[in-house]
Amino acid sequence: MAKQADKYFDIAPWSVSETGFDPEHGRVAESIFSIANEYSGVRGYFDEDYSGDRLVGSYFNGVYEYTPNDPSIIYAGIQKRGHFMVNAVDWLSLRLVVDGEQLDLHHSQFSAFKRTLDLQTGVLTRSFVWTLADGRKLALRFERFVSMQIASNVYQRLAITPQNFAGDLTLTTRINFDTRHSNQAGSYWEDVREFNDPEQFGILGKTKATRKRVFSLAKIKVAGGALKANEPVKAERVVGRQLTLGLTEGQTLVFDKAVTNIVEKTPDVPNDTVWAKGLADNQAQVGYDDALVQQRAYWHDFWQRNDIQIEGDPENQQGIRYCIFQMAQTYHGQSPTNNVGAKGLTGEAYGGLAFWDTETMCLPFYLFNDIKAAKNLVEFRYSTLAAAKRRAQMVDCQGASYPISTINGDESTSLWQHANTQLQPSTAVAYAVFHYAHLTGDHDFLYGHGAEMLVEISRFLYSRGDWNRKHEFSFYGVMGPDEFQVMVNHDAYTNYMGLKTFSYTLKVVAAMKTKAPAAYQALQRKTHFTDQELADWQDASDHMVFLGDNNGMIEQQQGFYDLPHVDVDKIPVSDFPLYDHWSYDRLFRNDMIKQPDVLMFQFLYSNDFSARSKRLNYDYYTPRTIHESSLSPSIHSIMAQELHKAADAYKFFGFATRMDLDNYNRNTRDGLHTTSIAAAWLNIVYGFGGLRSDGPTLSLNPGLPKQWQGYAFKINYRGANIHVQVNAQTVTITATSPVTLKLYDKLEQVGETPLKLSIPAVWQA
Amino acid sequence: MAKQADKYFDIAPWSVSETGFDPEHGRVAESIFSIANEYSGVRGYFDEDYSGDRLVGSYFNGVYEYTPNDPSIIYAGIQKRGHFMVNAVDWLSLRLVVDGEQLDLHHSQFSAFKRTLDLQTGVLTRSFVWTLADGRKLALRFERFVSMQIASNVYQRLAITPQNFAGDLTLTTRINFDTRHSNQAGSYWEDVREFNDPEQFGILGKTKATRKRVFSLAKIKVAGGALKANEPVKAERVVGRQLTLGLTEGQTLVFDKAVTNIVEKTPDVPNDTVWAKGLADNQAQVGYDDALVQQRAYWHDFWQRNDIQIEGDPENQQGIRYCIFQMAQTYHGQSPTNNVGAKGLTGEAYGGLAFWDTETMCLPFYLFNDIKAAKNLVEFRYSTLAAAKRRAQMVDCQGASYPISTINGDESTSLWQHANTQLQPSTAVAYAVFHYAHLTGDHDFLYGHGAEMLVEISRFLYSRGDWNRKHEFSFYGVMGPDEFQVMVNHDAYTNYMGLKTFSYTLKVVAAMKTKAPAAYQALQRKTHFTDQELADWQDASDHMVFLGDNNGMIEQQQGFYDLPHVDVDKIPVSDFPLYDHWSYDRLFRNDMIKQPDVLMFQFLYSNDFSARSKRLNYDYYTPRTIHESSLSPSIHSIMAQELHKAADAYKFFGFATRMDLDNYNRNTRDGLHTTSIAAAWLNIVYGFGGLRSDGPTLSLNPGLPKQWQGYAFKINYRGANIHVQVNAQTVTITATSPVTLKLYDKLEQVGETPLKLSIPAVWQA
Repeated sequence: MAKQADKYFDIAPWSVSETGFDPEHGRVAESIFSIANEYSGVRGYFDEDYSGDRLVGSYFNGVYEYTPNDPSIIYAGIQKRGHFMVNAVDWLSLRLVVDGEQLDLHHSQFSAFKRTLDLQTGVLTRSFVWTLADGRKLALRFERFVSMQIASNVYQRLAITPQNFAGDLTLTTRINFDTRHSNQAGSYWEDVREFNDPEQFGILGKTKATRKRVFSLAKIKVAGGALKANEPVKAERVVGRQLTLGLTEGQTLVFDKAVTNIVEKTPDVPNDTVWAKGLADNQAQVGYDDALVQQRAYWHDFWQRNDIQIEGDPENQQGIRYCIFQMAQTYHGQSPTNNVGAKGLTGEAYGGLAFWDTETMCLPFYLFNDIKAAKNLVEFRYSTLAAAKRRAQMVDCQGASYPISTINGDESTSLWQHANTQLQPSTAVAYAVFHYAHLTGDHDFLYGHGAEMLVEISRFLYSRGDWNRKHEFSFYGVMGPDEFQVMVNHDAYTNYMGLKTFSYTLKVVAAMKTKAPAAYQALQRKTHFTDQELADWQDASDHMVFLGDNNGMIEQQQGFYDLPHVDVDKIPVSDFPLYDHWSYDRLFRNDMIKQPDVLMFQFLYSNDFSARSKRLNYDYYTPRTIHESSLSPSIHSIMAQELHKAADAYKFFGFATRMDLDNYNRNTRDGLHTTSIAAAWLNIVYGFGGLRSDGPTLSLNPGLPKQWQGYAFKINYRGANIHVQVNAQTVTITATSPVTLKLYDKLEQVGETPLKLSIPAVWQA
Repeated sequence: MAKQADKYFDIAPWSVSETGFDPEHGRVAESIFSIANEYSGVRGYFDEDYSGDRLVGSYFNGVYEYTPNDPSIIYAGIQKRGHFMVNAVDWLSLRLVVDGEQLDLHHSQFSAFKRTLDLQTGVLTRSFVWTLADGRKLALRFERFVSMQIASNVYQRLAITPQNFAGDLTLTTRINFDTRHSNQAGSYWEDVREFNDPEQFGILGKTKATRKRVFSLAKIKVAGGALKANEPVKAERVVGRQLTLGLTEGQTLVFDKAVTNIVEKTPDVPNDTVWAKGLADNQAQVGYDDALVQQRAYWHDFWQRNDIQIEGDPENQQGIRYCIFQMAQTYHGQSPTNNVGAKGLTGEAYGGLAFWDTETMCLPFYLFNDIKAAKNLVEFRYSTLAAAKRRAQMVDCQGASYPISTINGDESTSLWQHANTQLQPSTAVAYAVFHYAHLTGDHDFLYGHGAEMLVEISRFLYSRGDWNRKHEFSFYGVMGPDEFQVMVNHDAYTNYMGLKTFSYTLKVVAAMKTKAPAAYQALQRKTHFTDQELADWQDASDHMVFLGDNNGMIEQQQGFYDLPHVDVDKIPVSDFPLYDHWSYDRLFRNDMIKQPDVLMFQFLYSNDFSARSKRLNYDYYTPRTIHESSLSPSIHSIMAQELHKAADAYKFFGFATRMDLDNYNRNTRDGLHTTSIAAAWLNIVYGFGGLRSDGPTLSLNPGLPKQWQGYAFKINYRGANIHVQVNAQTVTITATSPVTLKLYDKLEQVGETPLKLSIPAVWQA
């Protein structure tokens, strides 16, 4: 299963560029050039009308529509409808016409095409020279960015320079809700109300079933040329202006559009309220130039705190910066009602749904880059606790069962083999509560929302698990993270995470009883937990089935060792992806693993397991793993690095930072692999950097892959910005305020004065 | 889970009657009064227009339409479309009007309503007196039957007697293809061509997607009154005649309609060919009275050979005769392209699809009642061997994988957890080949079609199973007959049936090599089996995992003993049916059994297991069985009887013969439980009669339930009609030709002279 790079974009340390335009890469480039600010995102589609293949995708975090599931498969306990992030307003929509000739890069003649995403500003620029049929030429330069500081503000600029003529150009600018969600014939949007003034126009759109509102308003400005006419434009779900612009040869006319997108997710809020807020906010818009100054400052500050540098590897250097940039764009804690969809805000695959990837892959990035964002991610699960409790009831259980995939907190998938058997979304939330509280010491959160989630999750797990006749507790009929083993008993991951959830819940509740009696009583009033329940959870964690032997070798599930063997290296490349080429049941009846199960919890609870156990399990399970999840190789790389298997570590790191830039999975056209982007960050910081965050002290064991000359990363921890610089022989560490770290198994005090350590021989590649 | 009888129909030994009409029981009565002749069937709906709730259901065996499956769940190896037996032509359609007043039992005044199905003729009669608004009265008597001798011929008669007036009546008679399949808005039928003469009219209908044709032609006749006018009637998909009939007070006018329904299942056959055949056949129709004479003779002969009598239990007497009648109506080997749908030809639930019930529950009935029918049932599977081979390829296997549910041989279900994991349809076909050949000695079949199926099934099983590292063969990721255990390994039923399939295939192939070398070579040419394959199958049966201990106690699957226990007796009645009330996954993670798995193969291969083993397994599994399949109790009753547990045997027999007559499951409205009807027959003959047919000699161990005074049954075996009469102390057996039977473990020669045996003490209740 050798994955091949499709090299297309230019390599540079702080930007991603496309020189010349290849329509075959059109949708891939649209995904790569997506810009977002968590609140909303747009794919890098052309502003102007284009008759070639493309996806005009514009998305708002948490703005979704419903989709009915097939009634013939809906038994009790199976979700009757799903939901998906719905394609929304195209606020960039433009048409350019000169003397009846319309710009359309599918047909028009053009040259010097260049598109660049600047990672230091988040500005996407596209420039080219348009040659008209009669030889007249216009240099065009499009710019756009979405504000990282005022989430509702987004900006477009178009600079037009006629190179060899003077004359009129018609520019039609639109706010367009008549977008089509992929595969859908009709629009999901209704046009509630609109207005159309010469310099400002907008529409309040409403989704048909969910009644989400987006009010999108544009303020336009023309400079450097003559505005000869300005006529209103109107179509169904579309408003705009048609401008006649007088161009002077060699002189640049600049068209600016500052758009305010107001999202209202609550159906009860009156349209008038949304309308008034939108008008006020749009009036207060600063112009393009002022907003760009703010934007530049934001990203400057961001990179100061969160950059990763790699010496001697320009491709991974660009790759990891692109990953960090996309993570911050997709989510930075703007609102606790947002989450991280599997493809962020860059496409429609996976329906914009958030998975357990959020807690397992993305949360650590935020814990060390932006603690407010990390907290909001955990608060998202608190805000959807009621939905998780309804879901638990629906599956005949108690407490709270978190969904496999969701935007609004409800379960979205009707596939019972996932939705009803995978308990890792719930244990991942419990882990997130632990991980967040452990790293921040935020007891207000832990003893409030955190404890409430822990109690409800433990309650769910206890009701979903069961006792056998030997008074052992276990989970029956489950699927672990390894989705190639269906309806198994005693899944090691599920059982271990269940055990840890019970014991952490009990620990927190016990601590609250003595240290925070008021919070303890509040928790009791809210959750009505009983002493019997606490005793049950203790009993369950004391008697949890765990198929480990004395050496620490762990059987993934009951009967795993007995399963027929598949030599994964002998599977022909043409069989991939296996879901498309193997009969569904054939995936599930052998010892092939889709993604790590035992190794996964040995990574999450690294401190609980000996090196011997980790090595035994790594050596056994790795050759059985097919990595059909894009999250899988990074975990293997991290574990390989810990086990001093440098070749494996670098091999599994492989394309982590460039999965999308080089389109390794050949499906980047559908959107970025956003949660894999998080895994790439983990791969460097937890992998080569050897960070471990589950023990009493933050520990680091940095090593240097022999392919690199050096690398450096920054993490934020307890108020300190820690800078780790790794060279061939030496690690240099500073922190903006004093902090205790475990470095190569030794406690060290780190501060502003650089601490230099020689890399121990065992950590040298 | 106490099931309650809903007593509604009159008890009588040779008929089922409804005295008075209760619209609440309208659809139940429609199902109960269904008549059929395998080729076609109609529900007992009213001939005349009726505005109350009803299902005008008319079905033709093997005439189906397609239904698309939800694309979002269609992974590789999952069927993209299903199919279902489609509601077809209403050939009974009538309208009666007197002076503008139309007969409609939903509104009209009527009295002396009686509807009777005569089990000795198959004639359904309905009579009542219709009182017009002005007090005029007409006695009406409707009759209908479907010919058991000429499958395409069906008959309707209406006798009209004005009791207190003379005058005109308008009778509209129609052939109506504008029927609506349940849940469907539009018709599945196209009107290809039609004709309309005064005494003969018809339509050639075609299904839209599958292009099945049904040509339905009526020949009408009026006697005993004046035919004053005869006008054509035409609507979309409808032709007919409107007759004005002059009635004389006290004199009975008789309207007869003889209909020919020609089915053409092959799309290639030209419409003209179907048309010509239909016209010719309809011309040759004998009249109602002559056809009735033939019909009476058919059923007389049938009951002579196949009756069961029960003394001292009128309800079960009626019940078992109704069961036998319905079995013969539904299927009697008219064509090897037909099969037995789960609801026969009586309704639309289960889509008219045939399941493994055919081979497991229905085939024994035919083996002992109508050997030609039995052969055709097995030949059906041969005729669909190509489809089973395609299905095996689709699931990445070799050989032939028989479908879970089918009409045309293709798999119809998209539920992967059934279609891709249940191997019992294939092993059931192998068992049917064995059972048929074993009882008939039909070597032509066995060494021809039988052997070919056996080789292809063994090939499939070997490719679907796998070896573990201990060189044990097993089936992984399967569901046995107990559908409450999903994706298990080492399922006892699957493994044992697989083992028997391999060993029987090898035995047949070995026998052919020496005894029938030409057939052997033909088989080799056709299937290309190799010595290596034969060696593999031998190896697999030698090393098949079988979780039995030395006492004969068998673990149903890997880990079954470890499963959490559910006390099935404590499940509240309101939880049933469990599929509707328990979260889908909750059904699958405990030791509750839906229907027998271990007991099932101990029944099928009774001679292979000791009484001790059967008792151990019965005692262990019975309290864990919830009987959510209507086939389950009869198997338990049969096993209980063998184990001398008379109380259990009678308890599980319970409502077997009257499941539909007394509507125990409250869903008879959707159609009869046709395959449960077969189980009721098994329950008496294999249960109380103690018949076993898998050993070298046919054996019987008749016992008498203490609730009965006696019973008698007839079975056909190797050309002899064997009559078994059981009284309190004695069994009396005769056979129309000499036959050797094992009676109470002793070989006996039975002939025309009654053999009387005392019932051994151990078999006395």
